[in-house]
Amino acid sequence: MKTRLFTPGPTQIPEQIRLSQAQSIIHHRSEAFSKIFVEVNELLQYVFQTDNGVFTFSSSGTGAMEAVIANTLNPGDEVLAVRGGKFGERWAEIGEAYGATVHTLDVEWGCAPPPAKIEEMLRRYPDIKAVCTQLVETSTGALYDIKEIGRIVAGTPAVLVVDAISGLGGEHFLADKWGVDIVVAGSQKALMLPPGLSFVSISQKAWRLVEQVNNPRYYWSFAKAKAALDKDQTPFTPAIALVVALRESLLTIRQESIEKVIQRHQVCASAMRSGVQALGLCVLGDPPANTLTAIELPQGVSEKQLSAVLRDDFGVLVAGGQARLAGKIVRMAHMGWVDALDVVSSISALEMSLHRLGYDLQLGAGVQAVEKMLLGVNHPGTRQA
Amino acid sequence: MKTRLFTPGPTQIPEQIRLSQAQSIIHHRSEAFSKIFVEVNELLQYVFQTDNGVFTFSSSGTGAMEAVIANTLNPGDEVLAVRGGKFGERWAEIGEAYGATVHTLDVEWGCAPPPAKIEEMLRRYPDIKAVCTQLVETSTGALYDIKEIGRIVAGTPAVLVVDAISGLGGEHFLADKWGVDIVVAGSQKALMLPPGLSFVSISQKAWRLVEQVNNPRYYWSFAKAKAALDKDQTPFTPAIALVVALRESLLTIRQESIEKVIQRHQVCASAMRSGVQALGLCVLGDPPANTLTAIELPQGVSEKQLSAVLRDDFGVLVAGGQARLAGKIVRMAHMGWVDALDVVSSISALEMSLHRLGYDLQLGAGVQAVEKMLLGVNHPGTRQA
Repeated sequence: MKTRLFTPGPTQIPEQIRLSQAQSIIHHRSEAFSKIFVEVNELLQYVFQTDNGVFTFSSSGTGAMEAVIANTLNPGDEVLAVRGGKFGERWAEIGEAYGATVHTLDVEWGCAPPPAKIEEMLRRYPDIKAVCTQLVETSTGALYDIKEIGRIVAGTPAVLVVDAISGLGGEHFLADKWGVDIVVAGSQKALMLPPGLSFVSISQKAWRLVEQVNNPRYYWSFAKAKAALDKDQTPFTPAIALVVALRESLLTIRQESIEKVIQRHQVCASAMRSGVQALGLCVLGDPPANTLTAIELPQGVSEKQLSAVLRDDFGVLVAGGQARLAGKIVRMAHMGWVDALDVVSSISALEMSLHRLGYDLQLGAGVQAVEKMLLGVNHPGTRQA
Repeated sequence: MKTRLFTPGPTQIPEQIRLSQAQSIIHHRSEAFSKIFVEVNELLQYVFQTDNGVFTFSSSGTGAMEAVIANTLNPGDEVLAVRGGKFGERWAEIGEAYGATVHTLDVEWGCAPPPAKIEEMLRRYPDIKAVCTQLVETSTGALYDIKEIGRIVAGTPAVLVVDAISGLGGEHFLADKWGVDIVVAGSQKALMLPPGLSFVSISQKAWRLVEQVNNPRYYWSFAKAKAALDKDQTPFTPAIALVVALRESLLTIRQESIEKVIQRHQVCASAMRSGVQALGLCVLGDPPANTLTAIELPQGVSEKQLSAVLRDDFGVLVAGGQARLAGKIVRMAHMGWVDALDVVSSISALEMSLHRLGYDLQLGAGVQAVEKMLLGVNHPGTRQA
């Protein structure tokens, strides 16, 4: 039985990217490395859709989130954290760890924050220096309206910080055009890499905050990162093998084109949701993301049992719910190296597993809906325009 | 022409370790990963020679150094940084970044700190909470007497923090027996891995400091690292491919045995120094490390030229001097995956390159000295007892 990793990070990695890590290591202060790093940085700008420089840290995405807080907020500075899931909570927690005054916009888990509420918060607390939110809240599968939030924040002195870890490379996202000042990303999602690298792009508007901040920082220092980037380097020894693999991954994305990559994610996500709905199940995220689908568990089906059957009988690995959603959902990702038949496999494994657990469904109904959506067929025998 | 990486990090990586990174990625919250992580942690304790738990961070070694300072020193706390090179300076810089009161013991670059001087500093400043030093100062190639420093610090309330990044797995080092409270290590040196992982072990004595510290920290939090380690996990998504490769590397070390690995480093280092001396050149480190040799450049030979000839004509990559040693030395590493013929190759490339640059030497003299040392031959035709 093959193992199929359908977790929302780490994700499956194409063979040529995996193998690229295995090349003999090169020195990070060599011309050979700088050449790769220059290429990588240009490609990152392409994927982020930004003209701002992108810093590469050797860390998980959380490290980059901490780097943003450490470099932009002094103790006592006001920040707005949109809290619609575990990763929104993380913004608030890191803000608190740094002594910031954290205002939270609490959103029901699974929903996106109404941009008007953010506007309201910014009016009520005009000293807010940063609005921290997600592009996709990985814990709920909800997609946030960054374009509209960006429009609102751009009209205020605050900067907009978007954790795009689970969305970048799968969701339509235009960092500069939408006025996103700081974008955070990670390697192990739609970028099709192992975990271990994180990324931060930063606008001129946000850089002015960096210049005023006195928090203790060394490894996360944006000033050090910028000085090194100006010399086509990282300030400290980078995770070289991952940077080499990153080049491979970004070239793959560029070859397909970022627009087509996102379109592929849209198609997979729509097909996935059709399958889920055809099984009589509900999708949590509202609106739902392109990169993962959070599926509400029907009564009588436990997350543990379902995950175990998926894993043990079909080799399919999914993620359960986190924190308050523990036991209530399973999350199936379709981010990065994913295609139509991966969605078919996901839904097929899901319906067979549910069937084994005694859930009443018509075997094949989910996959049929997936196929119809993929082929644009609404009714049997009818081809959609 | 083959490329031979003789830089003091990154280092050469055996093929089976490189390839292990290329395996399909596994999820970090799976039993499969925890099983690997348990094994890795036991093997790290074996290599560190400690019973203390070892935290694994996805970062460079500098990240782990910052983690130590962030978790053990409040602003104003006194710390002693032994400053005998660039990495001793780094301890002082990170201490200052965190607002600690940094006392420095300045040691001539290339020399080891006299333990009696540390004793004196601890008497003069009895409130020092931590003594931060190196096992090997990578910038100078000097080995520090951690055993004796450990004896001294153990008799005081201070904790001993040793950056063993460039020494671990190449130098005789007994963390617990020598009273080292905190050991910092990195993946890209004698552990034969790409950069991207760092390690911190911590004693009970040092843990008492952690409990009193209020610095902002999240990614580096030892409390989070400990809570996760107790569940055979890391708090944040780890660099999974590197952890898988780490297991491979540590198993390789265990199979050879740490004692034999260190002995092999000793033999290579002695042979290396014989070769250097036979060419009429001086070794900087006093005493010199097993893991790298810093070679003082003779008059008339520029570091840039020598490095370029080594690289372009012989495919040998070395490191130059850093900071105040820039232009004055080259550093050739023999750490990790290194054997007798690597030393022969290093010295041969060195003598051929120097010859090309017009330095007066007898071709072959360096290699002859290496061979004699390797075979234990003192005089031609005489076998040493």
